[in-house]
Amino acid sequence: MFQPISISDAAAKIRAGHISPIELLEQCLDQIRRYEDRLHAWVLVDEPGARQAAERLGREKPRGPLHGIPIGVKDIIDTAGLPTRAGSPLRAKHLATADAPLVAALRRAGAVILGKTVTVEFACFDPPPTLNPWNVRHTPGGSSSGSAVAVATGMCLGALGTQTGGSLVRPSAYCGIVTCKPTFAALSTDGVVPVSHHLDHPGTMARTVGDVKIMLRCLRDVDDGRPPVRRPLDVDADATGPPRLGLLEQFFMEEADEPVCNVTQAALAKLRDGGAWIEPVVFRDGFEQVAPMHRRIMAVEAAAYHREPFAASRPSYGPMIAELLDEGLTISAVDYADALVWRREYSRRAASLLENVDALIMPATDTTAPATLATTGTPKFQAPWSCAGLPVVSIPCGLAGDGMPAAVQLVGPRHDDMALLQVAKWCERCFAFDQAPPL
Amino acid sequence: MFQPISISDAAAKIRAGHISPIELLEQCLDQIRRYEDRLHAWVLVDEPGARQAAERLGREKPRGPLHGIPIGVKDIIDTAGLPTRAGSPLRAKHLATADAPLVAALRRAGAVILGKTVTVEFACFDPPPTLNPWNVRHTPGGSSSGSAVAVATGMCLGALGTQTGGSLVRPSAYCGIVTCKPTFAALSTDGVVPVSHHLDHPGTMARTVGDVKIMLRCLRDVDDGRPPVRRPLDVDADATGPPRLGLLEQFFMEEADEPVCNVTQAALAKLRDGGAWIEPVVFRDGFEQVAPMHRRIMAVEAAAYHREPFAASRPSYGPMIAELLDEGLTISAVDYADALVWRREYSRRAASLLENVDALIMPATDTTAPATLATTGTPKFQAPWSCAGLPVVSIPCGLAGDGMPAAVQLVGPRHDDMALLQVAKWCERCFAFDQAPPL
Repeated sequence: MFQPISISDAAAKIRAGHISPIELLEQCLDQIRRYEDRLHAWVLVDEPGARQAAERLGREKPRGPLHGIPIGVKDIIDTAGLPTRAGSPLRAKHLATADAPLVAALRRAGAVILGKTVTVEFACFDPPPTLNPWNVRHTPGGSSSGSAVAVATGMCLGALGTQTGGSLVRPSAYCGIVTCKPTFAALSTDGVVPVSHHLDHPGTMARTVGDVKIMLRCLRDVDDGRPPVRRPLDVDADATGPPRLGLLEQFFMEEADEPVCNVTQAALAKLRDGGAWIEPVVFRDGFEQVAPMHRRIMAVEAAAYHREPFAASRPSYGPMIAELLDEGLTISAVDYADALVWRREYSRRAASLLENVDALIMPATDTTAPATLATTGTPKFQAPWSCAGLPVVSIPCGLAGDGMPAAVQLVGPRHDDMALLQVAKWCERCFAFDQAPPL
Repeated sequence: MFQPISISDAAAKIRAGHISPIELLEQCLDQIRRYEDRLHAWVLVDEPGARQAAERLGREKPRGPLHGIPIGVKDIIDTAGLPTRAGSPLRAKHLATADAPLVAALRRAGAVILGKTVTVEFACFDPPPTLNPWNVRHTPGGSSSGSAVAVATGMCLGALGTQTGGSLVRPSAYCGIVTCKPTFAALSTDGVVPVSHHLDHPGTMARTVGDVKIMLRCLRDVDDGRPPVRRPLDVDADATGPPRLGLLEQFFMEEADEPVCNVTQAALAKLRDGGAWIEPVVFRDGFEQVAPMHRRIMAVEAAAYHREPFAASRPSYGPMIAELLDEGLTISAVDYADALVWRREYSRRAASLLENVDALIMPATDTTAPATLATTGTPKFQAPWSCAGLPVVSIPCGLAGDGMPAAVQLVGPRHDDMALLQVAKWCERCFAFDQAPPL
């Protein structure tokens, strides 16, 4: 049986000398040898580079909170010396000459960069070869598919991903791991192949809330000229009392299928038993506009970025992204401008839902991972928060009747990512979900 | 001879009981009676409303730093009970039912809202009826034309304006007053008729740096859910030593005409005499892309806002704005998206010019106010900073050979508006420009 280890436990063991970075790396490489041929989580495992880093870190004093921790990097994020293929044949010969600031921040914190994880083609829609470790007939979700599967199976202890629609939360929920999509623009997107610059969010994926938080703190240590986020404070979660949560029955509980509703209701009952105050909140505007507006912004911005290679090499694009780009190329500037104005106003109104609660709570996905490899699922439950730019933490909370994990997502006030992670830690303790994929 | 009084002096006299709010208001109304028929600074002087406010404030304890100070509001900013006509016949029957948050903030600080000042039609290009008090054959600049003229002539002590291209800095420079265009998004644009939501900046206009600073501090006291700006600190300017200034000879000194260059060189000499360290800085990218990209963003966003009324009532639009809207309606979304990506990258690179200096310095306009009423001048010197979103303070520094005032603009680091105003105060003392229009 697979025995996962958390980043915080592994880091403590390394600091105490109970395990060396190279021993921890070998455990991850063992998992890769066992399961990678079946699951296809990696584009490239940089075994020599990782070994070299782990050996060097083993001789050094601890550099930071990720000292000796093997981390996977979604293959749209530049990692010096490795290709950034972004799931596209067009980038087969790419070579990144420098680390993206996020990767550099991980290295500064002591991380061992283990390799590049599979992404859906250009982080859009066309399904990747990756399979779900809970049941290989089910999609792992996307587009951060490889990161989710690698973390879920202990091939690495944490991973970087990105979300434009639902690409962090959906694969994390489908694969039973935790993710944090921080406030929009809180993390650098330099050195990341863009999808849509008004919607792209890098984020962290790991097996516990504490772990995504450790990673996030390291990533915010990036000097790219942006103003710092509002609340750098980091009170210990244990000091946090039961939270006030706003339940979005509207749209989310209405559109979720029965198995997801059942797991969510059971999770809410555990939170109430723990003392949480949970009341329904209603978004007067509704969420109906999100899907078309999100699609419009994403189509235009992706089309602007891909315009030249798409014109030159159309057959190298998958059918789903080609449809998106065709759509984006036909939209008028004023319609796109309308969508950006809508996004700004929607973001402000959505943020006002947080006025009287610590966080919003709702299912992370409308179904568990669909039993198909033809789609990575729908972003309908995740896109509302990619549009709003509010921070999200998704936490697995139980197994549905089909044996697949389900998750709730918590949404917090803008720039209060760390406070939201405190609330998430509290909830995670109530859920006490500690199952691993039946490998 | 016109004897201007500053906001800070007037406020001190009111606090000391040496003058009452109603007496101060009467001085402004006297100026309006003397010069308004000739200069056309106002769309509407709310004499009864202003009297009522001044009388009430005269009986109250000081509410804030603007207690009893008459302020003009550009007629694209909602002021409860008054129309917001935005210089357009289409809005002749408009009535604002609530104050824009900026106007509400002024009232909270004790300001007497004196009325609505003339704006260029929808704050774009078509010249208004307003004349320059230094010479009525010269444009006052635009689009905040009325605000600049009203302040320059003592019809009010301060005014609100807005800038999309150069609409705060240009009329202020042409009319010999001070303005601050704060960091992009530092001030609320709620209740302000938009031109271009990626470029619109509200700002303050007055006769001294201290005065625009007092107003700006009051305006930032707006609760609209945005995060606070980075440095709320406000050390007294007198404690500030000579600044390090980066001189933009590139583009600005190259494209300025000889009279403006001469006034600027004389101003730089005064700063050096005062102890300022001034060295040229070079922007590797150049500023050539600014004009076309600025125009594209502005055209699209204005066209998106005006789309329906423009289709329905085209003859009600002036020729210059109609040309802008026609242009915006034909642009593709991907071209507009490219411009937004350019703006983001340009903003970051422009901000890096501030790395080793306290502020950048350059002429505020390429010429003094042109001797024509057919244009409000070109935004070429102001648009680079509207695009970059960096804070700007424009300070009159001398008269050119034609007897018209010229100004330098200082550009500071993002979010450091208050620190920039400190530098500006230091420079203002060196310039010792204290001339008023020859009324």
